[in-house]
Amino acid sequence: MNIISERRFDSKNPNLTELGEDHLYHLGLSTGSTDFKSVFGDVKFVCTAGSASRIRKLAQHLAEQSGANTDLRNLAEKGGRFVLFKVGPVLCADHGMGTPSLSILLHELFKLIHYAGCKDVTFFRLGTSGGIGVKPGTIVVTSESLNTELKPIYELRILGKLVSRPTAADPELANELVRVANESNICNAILGKTVCANDFYEEQARLDGAFCSITEEDKFAYLKLAHEKGVRNFEMECTCFTALCRLAGVRAAVVCVTLVNRLISDQVRVSPEDYANFQELPGKVIIEFLKKHNSL
Amino acid sequence: MNIISERRFDSKNPNLTELGEDHLYHLGLSTGSTDFKSVFGDVKFVCTAGSASRIRKLAQHLAEQSGANTDLRNLAEKGGRFVLFKVGPVLCADHGMGTPSLSILLHELFKLIHYAGCKDVTFFRLGTSGGIGVKPGTIVVTSESLNTELKPIYELRILGKLVSRPTAADPELANELVRVANESNICNAILGKTVCANDFYEEQARLDGAFCSITEEDKFAYLKLAHEKGVRNFEMECTCFTALCRLAGVRAAVVCVTLVNRLISDQVRVSPEDYANFQELPGKVIIEFLKKHNSL
Repeated sequence: MNIISERRFDSKNPNLTELGEDHLYHLGLSTGSTDFKSVFGDVKFVCTAGSASRIRKLAQHLAEQSGANTDLRNLAEKGGRFVLFKVGPVLCADHGMGTPSLSILLHELFKLIHYAGCKDVTFFRLGTSGGIGVKPGTIVVTSESLNTELKPIYELRILGKLVSRPTAADPELANELVRVANESNICNAILGKTVCANDFYEEQARLDGAFCSITEEDKFAYLKLAHEKGVRNFEMECTCFTALCRLAGVRAAVVCVTLVNRLISDQVRVSPEDYANFQELPGKVIIEFLKKHNSL
Repeated sequence: MNIISERRFDSKNPNLTELGEDHLYHLGLSTGSTDFKSVFGDVKFVCTAGSASRIRKLAQHLAEQSGANTDLRNLAEKGGRFVLFKVGPVLCADHGMGTPSLSILLHELFKLIHYAGCKDVTFFRLGTSGGIGVKPGTIVVTSESLNTELKPIYELRILGKLVSRPTAADPELANELVRVANESNICNAILGKTVCANDFYEEQARLDGAFCSITEEDKFAYLKLAHEKGVRNFEMECTCFTALCRLAGVRAAVVCVTLVNRLISDQVRVSPEDYANFQELPGKVIIEFLKKHNSL
């Protein structure tokens, strides 16, 4: 069963046709010097993660598994901001931490696949997160992305005015990812709502930042309210990721491993071995998914 | 004249005294395994920038100028997120793009200098930016940090509720930096208001993102309104930077070079040579400032 339905990416921005050359500034790639159709035309999957070293490792695993050259070149090197690797039909890029950094990457990747004429593209975010009531090392596949008000919206300001965008995820894709993870015995995987915060400390109700204006009671009331509403983890990108992918007409899923159970601790204190293993779990799930879709 | 007034950093968070070991997760440094007082106790200046390669270059220049070892070690390597170099009394770190990523770095650096018992610390952000009505290659030292509503506040949500923090900068420090840049003939430097956006494209009224919901008239009306109010550049961190430094009781300045005049173009199209030179200008200003304060 191929669950990737036919959908072609069309940029929603008519200005792009009048641009002449488009310089994707942060990727360091330009339509004037790179033939996007021949270099990127076959892309079907885009894997993103916060950390450059983690996504580089995933790209290397993908290359090993598919018998491709593992001496990967960072195609975004000239931009000096992101890494970008291509392994067959899979692009891998880091997005840094937080929605502003992610939004830059997404705008430029959407333009990239637009110029390349890619069809049926699926975007994944592979992340680390703080779990709410789940054991560290659990994979949470996001069923719904919420902001810290626990609303399923991504807010930005255009011309200084607030714009709210819905963050609806792709339930079929999310369900399949949970199934793939559990059936392949990679780890325990669940479906859950995910909260996107704009900070690691104060916005996530941690008590151990440089500043703290809340009490322990405030913190637990907030986390428990979130848990009751079905939230299983906090991270810093999901609303932007699902909202912008939706707007671009590409399928999207957020697959995060939890490194801490916030109902027990604010600090991440897993052993170095567990930490190294946990970080690789989302990538293992995606590799298994790609195998099932004959894309490796 | 020493303009750095006597102010000791005291963390505002009483919980830290009860923590026992504090693991600064994203810096990969722990109070349990590093003696912060002996390693960082002499820190007086913290230089931050968006890009890891740019801040590494600055740290190397600082090391060369002060005759220190130029084979610098990334002290935050274990964290896998940021780079952190120490050259005498100067720390250098990258903060990624956008306020969420910056806020993580600041929380952990404030805790670091708190545990190290540092006194009279000054924080600099050295950045690139889009100019409004100024020639590319101009240095704008921020007189006031505004959000995209053109208000001098940094907003975050704590327990899901909106909190507004004032972004007041340090006028004496900003004026001195403009003077240092102009008197040493490094480049043309001006004082100006800076807008902090949470995205490079839509929040900065660019027409060339993957999506665009505004007209050219909307864009110019917004940019001109900002210009009339004294705004000279757009970037993605200043409100968080000045607001959190203010809260931490440390002196702060934002020094950005402009790479484009947004009243003429959305795209950054300076030559590779100019681009390389422009990027180094904020660092040159800071090096000159440090020399004047006998800190190199």
